[in-house]
Amino acid sequence: MSTRVDLNCDMGESFAAWRMGDDLAMLDIVTTANIACGFHAGDPMVMHETLTQARERGVQVGAHPSFMDLVGFGRRRIEGETPADLEKQLIYQIGAMRTMAEVVGHPIRHVKTHGSLGNMAAEDRQLALAVSRAIVAVDPALIHLAMPGMQTSLTAQELGLQVGNEVFADRAYADNGNLLSRKLPGAVIHDPDVAADRVLRMLEEQAVTTVSGKRIPLEIDSICVHGDTPGAVEMAAVLRRRLENAGVEIRPMADIVAARQPSGGLRR
Amino acid sequence: MSTRVDLNCDMGESFAAWRMGDDLAMLDIVTTANIACGFHAGDPMVMHETLTQARERGVQVGAHPSFMDLVGFGRRRIEGETPADLEKQLIYQIGAMRTMAEVVGHPIRHVKTHGSLGNMAAEDRQLALAVSRAIVAVDPALIHLAMPGMQTSLTAQELGLQVGNEVFADRAYADNGNLLSRKLPGAVIHDPDVAADRVLRMLEEQAVTTVSGKRIPLEIDSICVHGDTPGAVEMAAVLRRRLENAGVEIRPMADIVAARQPSGGLRR
Amino acid sequence: MSTRVDLNCDMGESFAAWRMGDDLAMLDIVTTANIACGFHAGDPMVMHETLTQARERGVQVGAHPSFMDLVGFGRRRIEGETPADLEKQLIYQIGAMRTMAEVVGHPIRHVKTHGSLGNMAAEDRQLALAVSRAIVAVDPALIHLAMPGMQTSLTAQELGLQVGNEVFADRAYADNGNLLSRKLPGAVIHDPDVAADRVLRMLEEQAVTTVSGKRIPLEIDSICVHGDTPGAVEMAAVLRRRLENAGVEIRPMADIVAARQPSGGLRR
Amino acid sequence: MSTRVDLNCDMGESFAAWRMGDDLAMLDIVTTANIACGFHAGDPMVMHETLTQARERGVQVGAHPSFMDLVGFGRRRIEGETPADLEKQLIYQIGAMRTMAEVVGHPIRHVKTHGSLGNMAAEDRQLALAVSRAIVAVDPALIHLAMPGMQTSLTAQELGLQVGNEVFADRAYADNGNLLSRKLPGAVIHDPDVAADRVLRMLEEQAVTTVSGKRIPLEIDSICVHGDTPGAVEMAAVLRRRLENAGVEIRPMADIVAARQPSGGLRR
Repeated sequence: MSTRVDLNCDMGESFAAWRMGDDLAMLDIVTTANIACGFHAGDPMVMHETLTQARERGVQVGAHPSFMDLVGFGRRRIEGETPADLEKQLIYQIGAMRTMAEVVGHPIRHVKTHGSLGNMAAEDRQLALAVSRAIVAVDPALIHLAMPGMQTSLTAQELGLQVGNEVFADRAYADNGNLLSRKLPGAVIHDPDVAADRVLRMLEEQAVTTVSGKRIPLEIDSICVHGDTPGAVEMAAVLRRRLENAGVEIRPMADIVAARQPSGGLRR
Repeated sequence: MSTRVDLNCDMGESFAAWRMGDDLAMLDIVTTANIACGFHAGDPMVMHETLTQARERGVQVGAHPSFMDLVGFGRRRIEGETPADLEKQLIYQIGAMRTMAEVVGHPIRHVKTHGSLGNMAAEDRQLALAVSRAIVAVDPALIHLAMPGMQTSLTAQELGLQVGNEVFADRAYADNGNLLSRKLPGAVIHDPDVAADRVLRMLEEQAVTTVSGKRIPLEIDSICVHGDTPGAVEMAAVLRRRLENAGVEIRPMADIVAARQPSGGLRR
Repeated sequence: MSTRVDLNCDMGESFAAWRMGDDLAMLDIVTTANIACGFHAGDPMVMHETLTQARERGVQVGAHPSFMDLVGFGRRRIEGETPADLEKQLIYQIGAMRTMAEVVGHPIRHVKTHGSLGNMAAEDRQLALAVSRAIVAVDPALIHLAMPGMQTSLTAQELGLQVGNEVFADRAYADNGNLLSRKLPGAVIHDPDVAADRVLRMLEEQAVTTVSGKRIPLEIDSICVHGDTPGAVEMAAVLRRRLENAGVEIRPMADIVAARQPSGGLRR
Repeated sequence: MSTRVDLNCDMGESFAAWRMGDDLAMLDIVTTANIACGFHAGDPMVMHETLTQARERGVQVGAHPSFMDLVGFGRRRIEGETPADLEKQLIYQIGAMRTMAEVVGHPIRHVKTHGSLGNMAAEDRQLALAVSRAIVAVDPALIHLAMPGMQTSLTAQELGLQVGNEVFADRAYADNGNLLSRKLPGAVIHDPDVAADRVLRMLEEQAVTTVSGKRIPLEIDSICVHGDTPGAVEMAAVLRRRLENAGVEIRPMADIVAARQPSGGLRR
């Protein structure tokens, strides 16, 4: 197989006295880091440290904003935020991260929403528009890393943003193209080799196969691996090795998106 | 008296469901607003609203960062933050505010530290350096609005920042040039006319007279009025009227600082 | 009309440096206070002060617990809390309030859930069970003040709790017996006399008439008035006067519930 | 050596999505657990889990309250809390923990202050009085676990509380009987056997030897071991083994304090 793909991982999710995940190990495996902005996790010191470590390893970085929900780690579904308020919350987070990254000398290239915000915006056009508007407001050159076909991807393209298409290495898909709820059996894949097999097939077919067998064609720019689950580093390391052995080139997402721009595919 | 001076006020200190002060009334009186950044008060919605209202009235704006201390409203003295960590906390806050202000179309022109952070940095060179470094890191064109003669003012000048000199309308001064502790008798002036008399004399003499009668000469760019105390709007309104009646021109701080740059006075 | 009823109001919803509502004025009008426990509003100092003021005026007190959601003031609908976790969050809040009230010398007599937690538990049996279990775990002698007919009221009775039945003075009702969403027209009644007319009719009929004209019979122990809306004190004062003029006796909820116990009606 | 002593450890310091320390391992080693109350660490779910695990292993439990300072993990020195406010903050925390422990069926027996609050109250009589008053207000039968000779120990005795005397296994002492600041060389002992040697000598002499060689006699009830440092479990395990090999009986603090009451020593 001759193709290229990015590996992205959420990180910088330590907070105050508490650690989360093994960011240094993951930074040696992935090519793109989505860094928490302080609303569900992260703080200014963690952000600075994560950006610095990413810079030293040449890992590209982006903002990973969330609902205002430290207690719920951004995983609780929160209803009652108006899209207008949400947009301001995102501008704040992306602005803080963008400034910190400039100070560190390693500017952010993209935005990826976290947890329940990402899940809800994927299916709610008004929330999706709030996300896209916030990105455009801060910097229209930022790429939106999102699941293809979902509302967030559609509104990003409507507003003229470049979109990076991601698939998940360790998650099953529902027929609407969204992730299968973690509460359902088989939603999470724990075996690294099973996950790698899936990813290789997705890359070969440039499609995702859902839990019911439905095939959704899409252009894949990036594979999301998790950093905060047991065995996360092993999962990511196996995946990277398997990809490299199959001849897949691992490249940062922003480079891949930039390279495919001429051939387009994005509606503007 | 023929001179010009700015009136500045801390605002945007509402948070979530809670209101603080009467920002709209104060915005009709002052020429510069120091807006809370979310660490001691304020949130993205309050920031956006305050910036928008200030823009519509032509009031200049700046970031008003603080210790991470929502519960203490930034007024508790907090020991145990390293200067390096504090610097990152300030970069985060100034970065978030600067981005929000750009989105609103009303860029910030200055930074003024809040509460205990301001008081402690005024007397601690290492904290003062952290403040100055954070401002330089985000944008060296930002003015540092501070009390003249204090450490924060000195380190700002060392690092090449422009400094706006402020005095307080309603506070007595200690002999070291810092504010007299609120716990001491006579520290806070409650009578608007007494405060106005003091300010007019300070402007005429271009000096502050301390509680012991010591006279500290300084160049005054701005008068700080409070927005969150009982009678705050009345105090500010009386002061503005008395200043205008005395022929003092009320102008935004950043304009005043820019205008006096040629004649210098700042060590670089 | 010869009947008795309680007036209850949420209070103690100030937090840190921020004030909310005019608790002292409301304490002169109502007979029962539901006091915030620190999760959506309130803090130990506010709790102590509110309990003390209530004790001095003979106003009965209860815990007013919420989702963990200071930023959303407990009004955001939060999905993703398991009933088991929610139960522990409620035990914590009720326990803290109960202890503080004992220290103040004015023990709590009841629990009333706040905001979205109340709304969601009213329609979700699992959440309702979590609420009832938490109350039973802390003290089975505590009364659950709730909307009659809703899940929270049913599970409270199943677990042997005494229930106080409340209706709202200023809110329209949906046909399922829950409050009409604030987003719908006519959901909130702003005219004090219209509200008083409604309440008098509800008391006379011992029933609530929904927005579609449906009549839901129920036993009314308490009228909920709001303390944090514009005109709240006026609304409550008018209501109290109108009730007294109509010969309704205003008595604390716990006394009313205790008095009607012999004649029963509660399944144990 | 024929004596008895308790091993105590701070735990339950996980928060929301973040873990801290290996509480299960420590619960197999120590006989007393000081459990965080949600202000510097811990939350209702963590509290419930830690209490349950302690109950199953027969480990005695107490409340471990702190300043309101989640961001600083209770380790930042906070000035500006009045003793009266601090007392209410402690009543809240102890009340919440006491209730949760009763619900779990494993009542708390003691209170031990956390971090900077403990350090500051040890040297400030007004803060120490606030701590003692809060404990008395909630339950005068609670033991105050504290460093002997410090202000907190003195005020506890003045107010009639039983006091448990603790020494630290891995910390050097200053001549005033307080812990040597962590910033000074030699303040923290990292070698488990060196720590065990120190503890055995302290027990034999019933005295602490300070960094300058001064000997402070005291009655030792408990040894504090840390759970959140690298090598913490190993340090604690080695200490327990060395104590047992030396014939020291490891018993819960509350039992030891209860047993020595007849022979007194506490001023009432």
